[in-house]
Order: sequence, then C-alpha cells, then structure tokens
Amino acid sequence: MIVIKSPQQMQAYSLAQRNLKKRIGLVPTMGALHAGHAKLIQVARKENDLVIVSIFVNPTQFGPKEDFRKYPRTFQKDLNICKSSGADVVFAPSVQSMYPDGFCTYITVGKMGDVLCGLSRPGHFRGVATVVAKLLNSTIPARAYFGQKDAQQAVIIKRFVEDLNFPVSVRVVPIVRHADGLAMSSRNAYLNPAQRNDAVILSQSLMVARTLIRCGERNAVSIKNAIRRLIARVRRARIDYVEIVNAATLVPLQKISGKTLIVLAVYIGSTRLIDNIVIEGK
Amino acid sequence: MIVIKSPQQMQAYSLAQRNLKKRIGLVPTMGALHAGHAKLIQVARKENDLVIVSIFVNPTQFGPKEDFRKYPRTFQKDLNICKSSGADVVFAPSVQSMYPDGFCTYITVGKMGDVLCGLSRPGHFRGVATVVAKLLNSTIPARAYFGQKDAQQAVIIKRFVEDLNFPVSVRVVPIVRHADGLAMSSRNAYLNPAQRNDAVILSQSLMVARTLIRCGERNAVSIKNAIRRLIARVRRARIDYVEIVNAATLVPLQKISGKTLIVLAVYIGSTRLIDNIVIEGK
Repeated sequence: MIVIKSPQQMQAYSLAQRNLKKRIGLVPTMGALHAGHAKLIQVARKENDLVIVSIFVNPTQFGPKEDFRKYPRTFQKDLNICKSSGADVVFAPSVQSMYPDGFCTYITVGKMGDVLCGLSRPGHFRGVATVVAKLLNSTIPARAYFGQKDAQQAVIIKRFVEDLNFPVSVRVVPIVRHADGLAMSSRNAYLNPAQRNDAVILSQSLMVARTLIRCGERNAVSIKNAIRRLIARVRRARIDYVEIVNAATLVPLQKISGKTLIVLAVYIGSTRLIDNIVIEGK
Repeated sequence: MIVIKSPQQMQAYSLAQRNLKKRIGLVPTMGALHAGHAKLIQVARKENDLVIVSIFVNPTQFGPKEDFRKYPRTFQKDLNICKSSGADVVFAPSVQSMYPDGFCTYITVGKMGDVLCGLSRPGHFRGVATVVAKLLNSTIPARAYFGQKDAQQAVIIKRFVEDLNFPVSVRVVPIVRHADGLAMSSRNAYLNPAQRNDAVILSQSLMVARTLIRCGERNAVSIKNAIRRLIARVRRARIDYVEIVNAATLVPLQKISGKTLIVLAVYIGSTRLIDNIVIEGK
C-alpha cells in the first residue's frame, strides 16, 4: 500500500492507472476509521482493480463553532485499517494543497442542502459536495463508496454527481452497527461511558418506528411523536431533528409511501449523533 | 463527423475513446459559429487525436431579460464549419437532457463572478461554470479550448478547473478580429449596418489604450478616461464598463504592472458587445 500526499501526484497516478485500464474504486473518508469504513473498503476491493482511500478532514464542511480542530485524527491506526481492508493507495492531502490561496469555487445543491442536518449545519453540504468533487477529479474512480449512515450526504452526492455528469457510479453501503445497535461513527469517540450507554436510544427509537410501520402505522406525525417520546426519556439526550422524508428527494412526508427515510439527529451531551433507517414502503 | 445528442451517449463514447488512449480536445460553443470558433477547432485539431465541438445554447447563463430566446441558432451552418475545421464529433444535447427535472446543482466562483460582466449579468458565470463542468464530465477531454474574447470567462474557467482539480488543460486562444478590428462574436449578427460601423469603436479605443501604454502611460484612470472619451464620441454607443484589472485575479489596478487586462463592455443600440486586450506589463 502506498501513501500519496499531493493532489497533482494523485491525479497523475490515477490517469496512468486508468490508461492501464484499471478500474478505480474511491472510498472518501475523514480518517478516524472504524468498522463502517472498513466495510466500505472491503466492498470497493471486491468491485475494482485498484482501491484508493482518501483521508482528509475537510475544513469547508465544518461550521465555525464545530469540531474541526478536535475531530479525531488517528492516521497510523487508519493506515493499518486501510491495509488490512484491502486498500492499494491512501490519498492524504494537506489542507493547503486542497485549498491553496485564492481558492474560491464551491458546489451548491439547492434546498436539499438546507434541510435536516443542513439546517443546524449551514454550509456543511456545500463543503461536502465541493471536496467530493475535488476527490473524484483527483482520483478519477469508476465507483465511489459512501456510508448510508450519512443518509442526506449520500442523497446529495448522488444528486450533484448526476447533475454535473461526473463519470462515476455512486455506491451507498448499509450502516454498520455495534452489537447494541449504535451506528458506527468517528464521533462516538467523544462519548463517555454513560453517554455511550444513552446513545443507543437513536437506533432503538428507529427500531420502534420500524415496528410501528410493520404493524400498519402510516401517519408520519404519529411515528415521529413515538420516536420523540422515547428519546425524551433519556435525560442527556436532546433532539436536533426527527424527520420522515422521501428517500430520493428528502422532501418531508405526511404519510409513509414509497422508499422512505426516517432520519434523526440527537445531541448526547455536547456530541451530535445521527442515524437513520430506510423503509421500502409499498 | 458524427453528431451525438445525449449526454449519456456522449460520455459512453468518450470513455471508450479514452480507453483506446485517444486524447480528446473539447471546444464548447453556443453555436452561431464564426471564424473565432473555427480557429478554436483548428487549434484543437492540431493538439489532439479526437476533437469534440459542443453546441448548446445554455439557458442557465442567460438572465431573465437577456437574449436566450433570440440568440442566433444556425445549426446546419455550424455543422459545416465544424466539419471543415476538423471536428470529429458534434455534441448537441437538448436543454431537457442537460437540465432534467430536479436539477439543482451549481458551481459558484466567488467575487470573480460578480465583477465586470457579472455585475450587469448576475448569475451568468454560475451558469457558465456549471455547464462547462457538465460538458467536461460528458466529454472527458485532455484539453478544452476557449476564446480570449470572453476574457473573464476564461479566467473563471481556469480558476474553477484548478480549484476542483478537473483533469483537463484549459487552453485560451487569441481573439480573431474582422479586418477593421471588430472582435468576432455571434452577437455581431444583431447589428444593422450603421451599428456595425459604430461597433469598431470597441477595438479602436483598446488600440489607443495600448499606444498610450507603449508611450509610457501607467495610470489606469488616465487610460480608462481616454477610452471613455473615445467611446463617448459615438452616439449609438453606451458604456457598460471599462476596466483595467490583474489578468489572473480580475482585481482592478491603479497602475499598470504585470500581466494586465483592459476589458470593456459597450452597448451599440440594444446589443451588448465585449472586447479586451492583454498587456504583458513588465
């Protein structure tokens, strides 16, 4: 496994590999890798000739009061996970090489970027779309892999990739969970043991929602209220949002129908966690 | 020469050609081709294995009160010019195929897009950057060719291509002029004979500015005033802007120094024309 630090070198390498007819799979990450990322790398390994994992904590997707500085950075451990999961190349550029002086270009995705997480994180998805476009152009993959954990991010990336005709197939890989149901997340590292215990309410409330739907409930307000009541019982939990939306457009639904996403964001102490489930509707 | 209408077919064709190690040159146009476009195609012909000319009147770069509907469309004549200039492929997508329902992604370039032409044409360069990104991703060129006539456009395209790491080399080709100095432009077709005569003041005033600089003038205000006075003498001419800027950043200069752009936009009757010269400074 090799490590490449410069975007220009990364692009030259990728162009050379494409000329050798190698099909490249890209797994973009912000490092602090866990079993969810390992899964992405393993899936990419199966489907491509060459697997590139990018590790870049992207400043443009953090708000001024967010955790850019304290975001966990575990580069040596990340390299081990990349290697053992089957990566060929780790692309780890510096902030300066990705955003040199004079940088002024951004990709925006309209209202889709302003709802749900975009409401409490203004500019977040603009930063995400911009850096993903840069990573795609630097690594020239045939396929790029994202986790369903970041459901809104996955929808937005599919949208801008299609809108701008990027020649890449976007693959979304199911959430990997801990044994108790908590979705894998780099931000779980912020939780103390009591908070870690409380955090299980995110996935538990989603499981209850799924059960309600299986039993015939179709009213979105009733389902959201059930989730809210469960979370309200956890003292250290504070809801940012609970929403039920169309899985392709992120438009809120009154009634469950078609492919539906139940999404939520909850603060456990000062740590903001997200989770979601997909309901296939009928 | 073949004509391809669908972005998906265009991309599949280009990927196949890239796999055959063909180096693709793209010449993006809005049709109504003239000798300036022919020059772009000829330059692309010399430098690439395969030359694609796109013909697409892009609605997102026109303001609501601008000339999108009446913009000259001369497709059969354009095909002849493409063929005789050496194009292999004409890519002529429909508006619906480029902007399907739900389209919501745009590329913005910060302040650079809000000055000069961006001031009287808000949103114009957002539309330009977005469609050029779509054309690059649909045709996957090694090189893309733009005219120096649209000086601000060329600077902005270089900027977003670099900022987003598009794997393409942007080539800017000098202005082609009529015998009397008027820069070739599809919008010259709007001029009646008297206006056509008046329109020569754009290039004439730029030539005077160049002479002033050759004679030692370095004060930007003095040079702009000289240009303004010349244009003011033409009754049917109305200045939109006359500006002297850094050629890489478009930031206005007080004093000529380094690579400098003298740019102007002038209405001749209701037709808005632009022109510019590059001063190499010292």
